[in-house]
This record gives sequence, C-alpha cells and structure tokens, in this order.
Amino acid sequence: QQANITMWGLLDVSLKSVSTGGVSATQMATDGMQNSRLGFRVEEDLGSGLRAGAWLEMAPVADTGAMYPSGKLWHRRSTVSLYTGAGELRLGRDLNPTFYNLAVFDPFSAVGVGASFNLVTNLGSGAATLLRTDNAVSYNLPANQGGWYGQVQVAPGEGVAGNRYGGARIGYQSGPWNAAVAYAHTGTATSTPFKLMNAGLSYDAGVAKVMLLLNGAQYGALKQTSWQLGVTVPVGLGLIKASYQHANASGAGTDANDANQAALGYVYNLSKRTALYGTYSHLSNSGKASFKVGTPPGAVAGANSRGVEIGIMHAF
Amino acid sequence: QQANITMWGLLDVSLKSVSTGGVSATQMATDGMQNSRLGFRVEEDLGSGLRAGAWLEMAPVADTGAMYPSGKLWHRRSTVSLYTGAGELRLGRDLNPTFYNLAVFDPFSAVGVGASFNLVTNLGSGAATLLRTDNAVSYNLPANQGGWYGQVQVAPGEGVAGNRYGGARIGYQSGPWNAAVAYAHTGTATSTPFKLMNAGLSYDAGVAKVMLLLNGAQYGALKQTSWQLGVTVPVGLGLIKASYQHANASGAGTDANDANQAALGYVYNLSKRTALYGTYSHLSNSGKASFKVGTPPGAVAGANSRGVEIGIMHAF
Amino acid sequence: QQANITMWGLLDVSLKSVSTGGVSATQMATDGMQNSRLGFRVEEDLGSGLRAGAWLEMAPVADTGAMYPSGKLWHRRSTVSLYTGAGELRLGRDLNPTFYNLAVFDPFSAVGVGASFNLVTNLGSGAATLLRTDNAVSYNLPANQGGWYGQVQVAPGEGVAGNRYGGARIGYQSGPWNAAVAYAHTGTATSTPFKLMNAGLSYDAGVAKVMLLLNGAQYGALKQTSWQLGVTVPVGLGLIKASYQHANASGAGTDANDANQAALGYVYNLSKRTALYGTYSHLSNSGKASFKVGTPPGAVAGANSRGVEIGIMHAF
Repeated sequence: QQANITMWGLLDVSLKSVSTGGVSATQMATDGMQNSRLGFRVEEDLGSGLRAGAWLEMAPVADTGAMYPSGKLWHRRSTVSLYTGAGELRLGRDLNPTFYNLAVFDPFSAVGVGASFNLVTNLGSGAATLLRTDNAVSYNLPANQGGWYGQVQVAPGEGVAGNRYGGARIGYQSGPWNAAVAYAHTGTATSTPFKLMNAGLSYDAGVAKVMLLLNGAQYGALKQTSWQLGVTVPVGLGLIKASYQHANASGAGTDANDANQAALGYVYNLSKRTALYGTYSHLSNSGKASFKVGTPPGAVAGANSRGVEIGIMHAF
Repeated sequence: QQANITMWGLLDVSLKSVSTGGVSATQMATDGMQNSRLGFRVEEDLGSGLRAGAWLEMAPVADTGAMYPSGKLWHRRSTVSLYTGAGELRLGRDLNPTFYNLAVFDPFSAVGVGASFNLVTNLGSGAATLLRTDNAVSYNLPANQGGWYGQVQVAPGEGVAGNRYGGARIGYQSGPWNAAVAYAHTGTATSTPFKLMNAGLSYDAGVAKVMLLLNGAQYGALKQTSWQLGVTVPVGLGLIKASYQHANASGAGTDANDANQAALGYVYNLSKRTALYGTYSHLSNSGKASFKVGTPPGAVAGANSRGVEIGIMHAF
Repeated sequence: QQANITMWGLLDVSLKSVSTGGVSATQMATDGMQNSRLGFRVEEDLGSGLRAGAWLEMAPVADTGAMYPSGKLWHRRSTVSLYTGAGELRLGRDLNPTFYNLAVFDPFSAVGVGASFNLVTNLGSGAATLLRTDNAVSYNLPANQGGWYGQVQVAPGEGVAGNRYGGARIGYQSGPWNAAVAYAHTGTATSTPFKLMNAGLSYDAGVAKVMLLLNGAQYGALKQTSWQLGVTVPVGLGLIKASYQHANASGAGTDANDANQAALGYVYNLSKRTALYGTYSHLSNSGKASFKVGTPPGAVAGANSRGVEIGIMHAF
C-alpha cells in the first residue's frame, strides 16, 4: 500500500431476550455493548502544520452478515478531512454534534437494551438526524485547547425532508470533570423545525464515575425533556454499569406520555480488546408512550418493555 | 492497525456453457473451481489458554463486480469466536455442520458444474439451511483430539420459516483415512421439519484419493437418498477429478424422479495459489426430476442437463 | 496475509452548484476531480515469465457513505489476470477500450462539471457500455512495445440488451507525443448496433500540454460527432485546466441538436496525494439537445447548463 492505511474493526454478538407488552422474543442479536464496525483510515502530513485524512467505516451486522439496514455501505462514517492548527474541516457522512452527549454521558454508550437512547425521540417530526448526518460540513476544534473541545456541523437536506441539519457542541474536560452542551436544528417536511438540545456532566472519582445527562426535544408544540443519572464502578477486571432515566412528554395532548428506564449491566474484560457482558433493562411507559428496550417484538403504547442480553465483544 | 488483521481472498472466473432440455447458454461465470471471497480475520491470545477471534468474509461475484445475490455483504461468514482448551464457541453466520461432508467428500468441493451439490435438494420444504445458517451458536471440537473432529450448531429461526436449524457433525481422520457423519433438523413453515443426514469416507492412496459420499433428505413423506463415488488423481502439477452420483427420490408419487450425474475435471496448478481448470458434467433426470448442472438456462423436468467450464482461480 | 495484498483508495468531496434551464441546486457532491475508490489487488510471479493477478475495486460515494448507484459493490473493477510475455489476459468487470481516450485526452479526465464526458451520448440506444463492461474478456498489450500500447475487449451480453460489447484501442506514445484511436460495437435491444469511435492526440511542451479529442457515435441514422481542444498548464504547485468542446448531432431530425461546453479549472496540489480544486463549466444546448454539466437539477432540452464546484481530493 502506498499510504499507511489503518484498518480496524469490532464485532459484538449477543443473545437477547426482549419482552414488550407481554410479547417476548429471544434472538441472536448484535451490538449489545459496542457497535460492530470495519474501517479504513489514513492521514498524511502535508507540512506547515497541515494534515489531510480520509476515513471509511462500515457497520457489519455481525449475527447475519448483512449490510447495515440503512443500506449505506459506509454507514458509520465516510469523510475527508483537512487538519490545520486552527482545527479540522471534515466533509461527508459522520456522527453529528447532538449525538455525542447521548453516548458519552450514558454508562451504556447509547448501545444495547440499556441505552439512554431508547427514550430519545424525534417526536414524529421525520428528522433523520438523531445520530448521523449525510453531506455534512463539520469543523472540529483542535486538540489541546486547555480542556475545551467542540464542533460545528452544517448539512444541506439535498431535497430530503428531515436531513437538513445545523448543530454545535462545546465541552470542557479537566481532571475528573467532563461537561458538554449541544444544540441542533433539523428541517422537516413541514415549516416547523425539529430542535434537539442536551447537556452532560460526569465526575470520575476513581472508585466510581457518575454521570448526568439532560436531553430536550421540541417539534412545534410537542416537547420531551429527560434526565438520566448513570454510574460506572470498576471492580477488578470488570465494570458495573447502572442508569436511571426519566422522560417527560408535554404539549398537544401528550402530557401523560412519560417513560422511565432503569438499566444494570456488567462487563468482564478478558483483555483490552475483548469483553463478555450482560445487561438488564426495564422500561415503563405511561399514557400512550411507546418506547422499548429493543426489537422484536414491536412497541406497544403504554406497556412496559424489558430486556436482557449477554454477549461478547471483540475489537481489533 | 492495532491488531494483526489477516486479509485474504480468491477470485475464480470461468467461461461456462450449459445445455438443459435442449436450451443452451454460454456465459462468463464465476466460482467454477472455488468460491470467490475477500476476508478479514483476527485472533487475540487472552492468556490462560483462551483466545478470541473475529471473522468477516465477503463473496464477490468476480465476473460482474456485484455483491452476492443473497444480498448479504458478509455472505460467506461473519462470526465472533472464543477458543478454549475445550473447544471453540462461535457466534454468527457461518457454514453449517451438514454442509461440510457435501464438500469435503466431493472431488469438486461442492462447486461448479460437476458439484455433488447439484443433486442436493430441500425437497420443496423451504429450508434455507443447505449451506449456511444465520444467528448460529456453534461449538467446534478443539484440534488434536487424536484424529476426532466435530461440531454442533443451533440457530433460532428468528421468525423466518426455514431458518431454524440444529445440526451436528463428527468425524475421524487417521493417516490416509477420513470419515464423517452429520445430521440436521430444520424448521419449516409447516409442522413438518426438514431433515438432512450425510456421511463421507475417503482414502488417500497417494496415486489416487477415492471418496464415497452418502446423503439423505426427508420432508414428511418426501425422501431423497443419494450416493456418490469420487476420485482425484494427481498427475504432475495437475489433478484429475471424477465423480458419479445417483439420487433416488421416493414418497408422495416422486418415486420415478431419480437423477444421475457424472463429472470429469482437470486442474492445472500454475502455483500453490493459481490454477487453470476445466470441468465437464452430465446430469440425467428421470420422471419429473429437474436438477441441473448450472444456470442459465432454467431447469426442465425430466430433461438432461450438461455443462462445461474452463476457468482460472487465483487465491491470495 | 498470505499474499502481499495492496490496498489503496481515494476520496473526493466537493461543494457543487449546478444551474440548468434556470433551476439551480447546490449540494455536497463527490468525485469532482477524481473518482472515489477503495481497492484490493495482488500479483503473483508464477515463474517462466508468467504472472497472475486479482483486482477488486469499490466506488464509495464519499459524501453520503452509500454504495455506488449501480448497486455493484465492486463497481470500478473486478478482474482476474494472467500476464505473459505476449500480454495480459484479463477476465471480469472493467473499463472498456473506448472509454480510455475520453479520459486520457480530456484535461478533466472525464470527471466533474467540466468533463468532456458530459457531451457523450449513447443516442438513446440503450447501450450500457460507455464506461465499463461486465463479463469481459480483455487482452492488453504488454508494456515496453517501443511506445505502442493497446487492448481488445469482448463481452457477451448474457441476455441483457446493451451489454454485448466488442472493442479495441491502439495508441503510440513517444517523448512528448501521445496518440490513440478506439472503436467499439455494442448490441442493443433492436437489430441496430451502437457504434462508438474516438481518437486523441496530445503534446506535452512542458510549459503546457495540449490535447485534441475526437469522438463519434452512431445508432442507425442517428449520429453525433464531437471535437474537444484541451490544455493544462502547470503553475508552481498548481495546474490550470481548460477545454472547449463542440458536439454535432445529425440524422432523423436531430441536426439542430448541437451543444458546446467550455470549462476552466484549477488544481492546487497540497502534496502528491492531496489536492484542492475548483472547476467552472458552461454548456449550451441548441435545438432539443439536453446535455448537462451535472445533476441535480435535471436536464432541460435546449437550455443552458452551468456548474461550479470546489473540492478536496485525498488519495492513499
């Protein structure tokens, strides 16, 4: 190879059982602890403090060998970057600013039956930007800014309602503390935009790391606000994870549609790259709320949903 | 790359002419001698006799650049493994136990116009488990068991009729001898399961290797049993292959639907990784049997099918 | 890896604005200067002057992470080769002989809003062979033939009208001069074939390289002939590109459907592998001609089309 291409990956396969509204399904699943991936990336030093980079990353469905259901071969990331002393200009498909807090300040990293992400909603707005954005122009702050980090991302919808995105995130990390806020605005098929904002705070005391995550979504009169308290406790080669989340819906007759989720997990690290894990999560819906810890089975309005999964994750 | 990723592949392209029921088609084809592939795999030593591994393998359609018709990006294999002194636990999509004998004890390795697999049938049961299984939990015996090898595989159907599989294989290899038996049970859309069982025996005398393959399928009253005699003869850098197979159908008015196949092939090894090959196969259908040595053209009940292909295989 | 696999790639992302018939669209686009790719190839020395090779090359859509719209995973190339002292036998999907001149003698290499290819047409014949061919058997002259180079390619249609191709190209390069001619014949759904022929000539004077490209297409009574004059001028680390093309339609009432394109571009090389670029192109249609410099928006008969794009290309 002409350039020094870095290739890496991760496969995560689990046995998962979910029960929602009295219907149960047990299956082999994937991505219970971390999302499966296979990537190729490269960086070139252009001199004068400039660097160029390219990044292509797939999302294999490890249990069936399928391409990711999005149908995008490079589902996770496809970007070209230009790095300068003043930051990184990044072009292409990528995670967006408002997603990061939902993963960083969640003990379950927004993955699996215990993910805080289970209660995140676009409020029926059709916004397709809860995780990733296509055609994005991103600017990322350079490293080593005295603890500050941040990013801005703008993406045209290119004719697809729900894809037009503008968002930003700024954070500060110092010693055991980490805090960040993010805001985004997504165009929809109506004249009303979908807005998402969130904030996270964590403190790592060594014997335990505690996290607070706040998230708010708005689509016209429809609103949802949620808070989550999370904790991770290292025990020898293992890590205990726990979280409790409450989501409060309001507006347009949805005030009763609240939901709660409590999750408990354990990771046993066989090495830095390989782990066994187990997670249990219980989600209760009020009113007509229809959140779920996973599929199948499908969501049922007002019913509880609970799930358990045990799996193995191998990164390379 | 963080881990030591092994990348490998194989492309096999041929010119193939098939005539079935008087209709002929000549085309550029692929996978006449071995199946094309591109794979990525990794293993990690976890200490204490434990190892972890991941395996992702695609099936390029070499003559057109297409993805495999299954639509699965990682059509050939997508698994995570944990190896212990007591064997390997493997999770994901993979070949299943009942397929192995059909390849190992066939001079044509279940590939191309001469494949024993041309006469293998699911008897219209809808079972999709003649080769591979999704969502499979497999246990493989460790190496060096005094000649014994074996595997067990269980897979939930996950709501898809014809995907629910349970099967096992056990074999013994010693000096020139190799023998194995396998059995599997696949759920179908009806209350009747599809059952497949097969056995193989081979003896490698040096100047020639002879093989016997027995295969039996049952779906309620419908049955098919077949036997195949095969031989491979090394001649300098080349290898002559020949096989004769007879398949006997019975039950539910299918008793007359028997079929025979005779195949002759030659492989000329340009190196350990590159070969030229040619294969001729003749298949005769009785009654309403509609087997074929390849497509196009489509199968014709009761008609003969014959094919010839010459190709090049390059492994890397 | 058993063999010495070469992995390489290129990502090209741009901001593109196209206006056609008074309708404008601005978007993040891809492949403005070079086509994005990710490839795997290998060669093996078989001794006695023989070599074998395999080549698999994808076409990532860099701005969205999608697979190429053709739906072919290995869209760019999928071939097995056998190299002898008398030339290369190549089997599979590949560029075809009549495409090369359209890229080699175009300052814009047949890519982006300024591509000569914008005026190339199959005259509505349904021929799908303007760039690549599936199931192709190709013969390429060996290197070092005293300046001569050439190739022949034959491909069966395999039942798909517009895919049956036979073509050849021969060229001569000596010092600053390079010249080549190509001809191809493609089967269509009617009894009338589509014929394409082209020729190119270039002279590299060091301070500038000038190029002439002639292209002719015929489908029964329908004809199109075009000529293009191109020039590239290196300026320090940069390269200025300019071209002017005239396409003349004739036959079956299409005599008035002519078109012209003028394009100007600048490439600034940040390194041998990384470049920033900008291109402007203006295309005018006469009569009912409906060529365009890019999409969206769609083509409009008789209307002008112009486009500008700025982008970054990183090869690895």
